[in-house]
Amino acid sequence: MITLAHGAGGKTTEDLIKKIIMPKFKIRNVNALGLDALDDGSAIKSGKTFFVFTSDSYIVKPLFFKGGDIGKLAVVGVANDLSVMGAKPIAMHLNLILEEGLDSSVFEKILSSIGKTAEEQGIAILGGDTKVMEKGKIDQIAISAFGIGVTSKLLTDADVKPGDDIIVSGGVGEHEASILIERENIGVSKIKSDCAPLQDMVEKILKIGGVHAMKDLTRGGLTMALNEWSEKSKIGLNIFEKTIPVSKTVKSMCRIYGFDPFNLACEGRMIIAVESSKTRIVLKTLKKTKLGKNASVIGKAVEGGEVVLNTSVGGRKLLTPFEGVMLPRIC
Amino acid sequence: MITLAHGAGGKTTEDLIKKIIMPKFKIRNVNALGLDALDDGSAIKSGKTFFVFTSDSYIVKPLFFKGGDIGKLAVVGVANDLSVMGAKPIAMHLNLILEEGLDSSVFEKILSSIGKTAEEQGIAILGGDTKVMEKGKIDQIAISAFGIGVTSKLLTDADVKPGDDIIVSGGVGEHEASILIERENIGVSKIKSDCAPLQDMVEKILKIGGVHAMKDLTRGGLTMALNEWSEKSKIGLNIFEKTIPVSKTVKSMCRIYGFDPFNLACEGRMIIAVESSKTRIVLKTLKKTKLGKNASVIGKAVEGGEVVLNTSVGGRKLLTPFEGVMLPRIC
Repeated sequence: MITLAHGAGGKTTEDLIKKIIMPKFKIRNVNALGLDALDDGSAIKSGKTFFVFTSDSYIVKPLFFKGGDIGKLAVVGVANDLSVMGAKPIAMHLNLILEEGLDSSVFEKILSSIGKTAEEQGIAILGGDTKVMEKGKIDQIAISAFGIGVTSKLLTDADVKPGDDIIVSGGVGEHEASILIERENIGVSKIKSDCAPLQDMVEKILKIGGVHAMKDLTRGGLTMALNEWSEKSKIGLNIFEKTIPVSKTVKSMCRIYGFDPFNLACEGRMIIAVESSKTRIVLKTLKKTKLGKNASVIGKAVEGGEVVLNTSVGGRKLLTPFEGVMLPRIC
Repeated sequence: MITLAHGAGGKTTEDLIKKIIMPKFKIRNVNALGLDALDDGSAIKSGKTFFVFTSDSYIVKPLFFKGGDIGKLAVVGVANDLSVMGAKPIAMHLNLILEEGLDSSVFEKILSSIGKTAEEQGIAILGGDTKVMEKGKIDQIAISAFGIGVTSKLLTDADVKPGDDIIVSGGVGEHEASILIERENIGVSKIKSDCAPLQDMVEKILKIGGVHAMKDLTRGGLTMALNEWSEKSKIGLNIFEKTIPVSKTVKSMCRIYGFDPFNLACEGRMIIAVESSKTRIVLKTLKKTKLGKNASVIGKAVEGGEVVLNTSVGGRKLLTPFEGVMLPRIC
């Protein structure tokens, strides 16, 4: 039976994909990067160009939150998955599933947000589909977005090298924290979702060179992203807790709910694996950008296969992906 | 306020897309075919190759019907949109939105159907996304499919020429009729949905040459497809009712419900606009295929701008797209 955990992006989602979904599909690649990679996107090579593709559904609740809404999230979400693979997002398709009776002004507000975000990023909206389900058969709106990007050099989760420094581009957990605060109406000062496109930062650091991999932190948060790198690049990661930026509001929210901030989803943060000779200049470049001012070196890739967190109080523990579901419908 | 008609694929859907959705998006094309074309798919040119993209959501009810299921429909639906643009479907992304509590065996049956259909067509499943909504917040499952195809020659809805013969590849309305019979459990012998991939037929007739355009008949049926051609190719269409194949079961169902068979959706039928010098050989070729044995020349493209139906009883009437909704959730 399907549970909320199957959609939460943690261990249970991973198991569903690897054990139930993937074996049903016999053809899983064209000529470059397919389903088996379980990366942020897939790729098809055409001449010297990689066309990169990614797709995500958005069912976030509430539809509007501080710092964003489901429309902005849909554009930013797929754009970021392309950006971290080294691809410039150029186009999208949008499938809208609407509930009968959905207020037109709500719908138009979401459309405007999609349009504005896409326009700011120079992303064309090429097509899509609109379906309507009877009242009570879907909760307001679900958006499925398909992103198309291009690059001459593909960066994947398997490209992290021992010796690489690991940088996080900003404070973690702000998106999921903002959703929780919005939904529960708890007595913590409101925090803005980090929902934002990464492409500007990505372009600037790729120009420097030495960046081996990037990964945006979404469902499952920093912990899930680090574990995916460790598994796919067959490396260990040595992470230092006190270097990971976490805002005061996220910290206090985590205390109230017993959440681990490193498991909370972001929608405008990424980790970067960079050759140590380039770390200083990459960090400096990030810090000069609007989104990257809290960027921080949080650890190092090493030989081995474990993600180890060196805690603030001098302990060492394995950082493992959460099982189950912390909060449903965060994106 | 959003109504079921907004998702029914008729005039109301068209108005929603043209008047509400499109104006919100400022960038609508990359370098080949974008949103303004409102074609079955979009295209981006890379060297001499067109990458063709299409996307659709599937919310059909019931999930399983005679001749198909939501999984087969998702693969066939996007594959056919690519095929009729002259593109070979090569890959897909699949976004699944599941209801908490969905039976695993139902889910796996759908996945197997997706896998089988994709494999038979040589289509790779490159990626996707799985989300879960709380029980009661979505009706079992919605699938969003994103299809990727390639071609060196793009066929669009704007390519029909005056003088072209119009062929339909088989009996119309069988998909929507099968859904209605399944859902209403009416006393009409069950009819099989026509849900099937068109690629085999398409490849065979494209080899002959002289095919200017193809269009699969989905929501809005034959009437909608003919009207789209008329509008986008700036031509008139002179159609002869008695030449349009309609099965006995579809006819009797239409009598019971007062439906017009030409408005009923198909999922494995297309219209073809062909140079009259090639009509005979194209028709002969179609008739030799499994899906095309009832193919028929149904009319001719002419100068002008109207779709005229010459009725069986000697009348002449305009064939205009329906407004409102005949049957919700047929695909």
